[in-house]
Amino acid sequence: MDQPGIIGMETAVLDHGFVRVVDTMGTDEAIGQAAQVSYGTGTKKGSDTRGLIRYLMRHWHSTPFEMCEIKLHVKLPIFVARQWIRHRTANVNENSARYSILDREFYIPEIDVIQPQSKTNKQGRAGELPEAVRFAMRETIRQESENAYQVYEELRTGSPWFHRDGSPIDHEHDDYEPFSEPEWGMTRELARMVLPPNIYTQWYWKVDLHNLFHFLRLRADSHAQYEIRAYAEVICKIVQQWCPIAYEAFEDYRLHAATLSGQELALFDTLVSRNTGAFRRLVDEDQTLSQREKTELLARFMPEAA
Amino acid sequence: MDQPGIIGMETAVLDHGFVRVVDTMGTDEAIGQAAQVSYGTGTKKGSDTRGLIRYLMRHWHSTPFEMCEIKLHVKLPIFVARQWIRHRTANVNENSARYSILDREFYIPEIDVIQPQSKTNKQGRAGELPEAVRFAMRETIRQESENAYQVYEELRTGSPWFHRDGSPIDHEHDDYEPFSEPEWGMTRELARMVLPPNIYTQWYWKVDLHNLFHFLRLRADSHAQYEIRAYAEVICKIVQQWCPIAYEAFEDYRLHAATLSGQELALFDTLVSRNTGAFRRLVDEDQTLSQREKTELLARFMPEAA
Amino acid sequence: MDQPGIIGMETAVLDHGFVRVVDTMGTDEAIGQAAQVSYGTGTKKGSDTRGLIRYLMRHWHSTPFEMCEIKLHVKLPIFVARQWIRHRTANVNENSARYSILDREFYIPEIDVIQPQSKTNKQGRAGELPEAVRFAMRETIRQESENAYQVYEELRTGSPWFHRDGSPIDHEHDDYEPFSEPEWGMTRELARMVLPPNIYTQWYWKVDLHNLFHFLRLRADSHAQYEIRAYAEVICKIVQQWCPIAYEAFEDYRLHAATLSGQELALFDTLVSRNTGAFRRLVDEDQTLSQREKTELLARFMPEAA
Amino acid sequence: MDQPGIIGMETAVLDHGFVRVVDTMGTDEAIGQAAQVSYGTGTKKGSDTRGLIRYLMRHWHSTPFEMCEIKLHVKLPIFVARQWIRHRTANVNENSARYSILDREFYIPEIDVIQPQSKTNKQGRAGELPEAVRFAMRETIRQESENAYQVYEELRTGSPWFHRDGSPIDHEHDDYEPFSEPEWGMTRELARMVLPPNIYTQWYWKVDLHNLFHFLRLRADSHAQYEIRAYAEVICKIVQQWCPIAYEAFEDYRLHAATLSGQELALFDTLVSRNTGAFRRLVDEDQTLSQREKTELLARFMPEAA
Repeated sequence: MDQPGIIGMETAVLDHGFVRVVDTMGTDEAIGQAAQVSYGTGTKKGSDTRGLIRYLMRHWHSTPFEMCEIKLHVKLPIFVARQWIRHRTANVNENSARYSILDREFYIPEIDVIQPQSKTNKQGRAGELPEAVRFAMRETIRQESENAYQVYEELRTGSPWFHRDGSPIDHEHDDYEPFSEPEWGMTRELARMVLPPNIYTQWYWKVDLHNLFHFLRLRADSHAQYEIRAYAEVICKIVQQWCPIAYEAFEDYRLHAATLSGQELALFDTLVSRNTGAFRRLVDEDQTLSQREKTELLARFMPEAA
Repeated sequence: MDQPGIIGMETAVLDHGFVRVVDTMGTDEAIGQAAQVSYGTGTKKGSDTRGLIRYLMRHWHSTPFEMCEIKLHVKLPIFVARQWIRHRTANVNENSARYSILDREFYIPEIDVIQPQSKTNKQGRAGELPEAVRFAMRETIRQESENAYQVYEELRTGSPWFHRDGSPIDHEHDDYEPFSEPEWGMTRELARMVLPPNIYTQWYWKVDLHNLFHFLRLRADSHAQYEIRAYAEVICKIVQQWCPIAYEAFEDYRLHAATLSGQELALFDTLVSRNTGAFRRLVDEDQTLSQREKTELLARFMPEAA
Repeated sequence: MDQPGIIGMETAVLDHGFVRVVDTMGTDEAIGQAAQVSYGTGTKKGSDTRGLIRYLMRHWHSTPFEMCEIKLHVKLPIFVARQWIRHRTANVNENSARYSILDREFYIPEIDVIQPQSKTNKQGRAGELPEAVRFAMRETIRQESENAYQVYEELRTGSPWFHRDGSPIDHEHDDYEPFSEPEWGMTRELARMVLPPNIYTQWYWKVDLHNLFHFLRLRADSHAQYEIRAYAEVICKIVQQWCPIAYEAFEDYRLHAATLSGQELALFDTLVSRNTGAFRRLVDEDQTLSQREKTELLARFMPEAA
Repeated sequence: MDQPGIIGMETAVLDHGFVRVVDTMGTDEAIGQAAQVSYGTGTKKGSDTRGLIRYLMRHWHSTPFEMCEIKLHVKLPIFVARQWIRHRTANVNENSARYSILDREFYIPEIDVIQPQSKTNKQGRAGELPEAVRFAMRETIRQESENAYQVYEELRTGSPWFHRDGSPIDHEHDDYEPFSEPEWGMTRELARMVLPPNIYTQWYWKVDLHNLFHFLRLRADSHAQYEIRAYAEVICKIVQQWCPIAYEAFEDYRLHAATLSGQELALFDTLVSRNTGAFRRLVDEDQTLSQREKTELLARFMPEAA
């Protein structure tokens, strides 16, 4: 049950972030093993783990995938963390700014990801801005982040209002020497509220493979915000190494799949019924579908021929 | 099953926030009803709902409390939302800054809640700051919030770089007239990342009573951050009106209760054993415990006498 | 927010079971309302609830559906309850056989649902048995259920070993008069373990609409065991009355929908690319898809034409 | 992160059951590690893991305990499984009697756990039955289990109605030779419904340490049914080996602890206030509480002295 190549592996994401694999439980074999318990002794072992896992994924048998678990250490901007945390079926320990002082590290977007609001997609970006404007915007973000951190430091330490020894500054007569170490100022849990959400936080995030796939389907999707997608894509690569068979099935039956409505299916039923010969040839000549999938596909779209 | 006095009720919290009751399901009666299903026909109806609910709470029978549900509309600063969302067993629909433009509303703390970092409690505040410093800090927070919103507007609209008609500004020759309406700038999902977490957001939050009590126990506690406690205390009042019997039991057996460790219990065992007469008198004369609770208490601390 | 026609409604299922609506929270409007909070002021109200709900369902935006909640009182055989309870995201209060005596009510299948094991589907039934055999099997089940209940009564009351007054029977000299009332026998929590799982139990089951749809998709499916499907179909009818718009969207985009894998989609891409004219005509002439869906469909299968 | 002594360890429970450790993630160190992420760099490493873990447990900081995970393979009677599954925050793959044929293995209670219904506790057993009666009851359970399995075999195979080759038996002229191998009878998913819930099933059960502790607190408790307690006690021993520090803290602050209501605390406040000297001496002389716990205890019961 060892995956020495994965545990400890750290991948950089965005400008200061990372994803590091802390621990894993189970692999492709564990999925097969759990399915065996559920479905009894009937299934042959070993050679057929791939067929079994693909069958489970195709038919939405999700519990065997819950038998694998992964724990990640992630460093990420707070606005990404806010999207991420909506996935409730996971365990999280996040760095608390009530306890500790946040580092001066902000996500400053590269100019090629600075885009206008999409006209068609209310939640996305699309199109282009003049390069000079993008540079100016980037600089504005950088500057505002610096300013905010400066204010955080002042509130937290009380530096503009106290001397290093804690005595109040008399601004008319005293010199003002800023400091960042002794804290004479306001409690951290309040001071942090000026820090914008492009500042980085960290957490341990632990999740089972089924719920991780659900997360990845939504967050590695082209509609997800670029910044969280960057994390999702790194995690996809990790899962591909960790559970290669399950990951392949996930790609085929989830990530690259599409759900057709009853109405859309009816439309394709008609299209197929007018081209039965061509459809059957396409299925017969296909090199990617298993025999079982071909049978299921024909049964779905050409029931009379089955 | 109607509670006309509660639905629609809105209570102000902090400087711009509120809690509004959108809908409820069930009341004290629903808790009793569910317990009847579990524990069969043996329990008498009506008169004894209070005794039953207190018994359930005392003995950690949590599922009947899950049969009540409440839906709240809450307006709250984002840093409060970040603490709140850790309670995963609830349903949430939050206003998305990817879709819509956030309003210029920030939580600016009153000067009497601006306190220094606690020396004994790493996550809290305690002690006092000079009043003038507190005023100055408050003004600093207000100013920084204004600045950040200003930057947000600029990034979002592109106002410093474009004319109102979308043509680029030639800063050497053109006048600059700021605007906030047409959006020629950067996509909202990116621009928002300069807005500090004292800005207000909104959400619908739906939770069952058991999980709500768990939330309230942690967040109406004196160790919770003042700002989230302000919300928890308002919700306590709401629950008190909604399910008065369950709320009273919650106060007695959770909020005002304490858990003693095995070692601490042993210590009290000794104390009682050396003062059996006094202890028994205290129990006998008590006006607040039910007879059943007295019996249980004596059985726990004076087993030989039971 | 009142649905007077639904609350209290009770529908019979199988031979002794039922589903009764205890309470509901929210309707189609509540789904739209929650989506408005998430996606801001941009969406028009009223007239467009249907379009909005269908959009949410089509694009897997699940949280607004979590804003509706339903509480059902269900009477069901224990073996059905065992399948049902695997859906973990719900609240349950089940009648406990530790506390109360179970009634002598068993599910005895009608002869037309008594079928052989399916040859192709390891978890299902298919084919036919001679009618006489089915009658004999039904009678065998009925008889065995009676026997088991008889044993339960004996163990629980101690009737074969005690007189009605609790004194032991001397089997050589005493008469044996069976009784079912005083309990001199073994504790209920043990005696129940001889009662087969076709005995009926009851519970309150409370769930949000999103998770209910997930349950219905799996349990109203033709692969689900007939007995649980009978309950799922009754609940489908309830939801259709309760939230008609959401239910219609659920039927179109989930219940009657199918997910095609990446490989299957590629195959249809080829089929369409060889019949672009016919496909476009089918889409154009279709009366069931909305304009938006047609656009999305063409964009998916004829991207070059979009 | 290896615990070679635990993985694969199998412990027998009841007459045919077992608990086997399939896999674990994390140990005491992982709890400390996660807490470090949350609470920052302030805490010293190594030597202080015990103090930290006890602090977390005492103050209900539950998320670091969620960072440990265990996967167990359990064989257990179905009526125990029914209680167990109410704990929803776990992953389960159970052997399905729709797919596979259940083995002829039943839980037959030892005569010393066969007891009458408790007079005071509606959900428990207490008192004694004559030994001869207990032997008779045990035999009755054994016999009924055999009968039920016999009926299961008949329904499943169709043996009383068919010859081994599938041709119907003519009961007037043919010999009847029972068989258990070819299945000419009713589908497994129906036949199983005559099998009483003292038959054994199996599952993989995966849970994080926080939720496992919650399970153990309820199920290793003296109010839990003996049969599930037998499993809980075995799992306690497993956790004690796996995460000894966390387990010790669990025993002290949960399993052997008690929650006192506000009213009960007031009563002890009075008792202490009348015996301040004695109380302080007891605290001072105590060898089991840490200095920090003593301080907290005095602050709670003798606030004026703190």
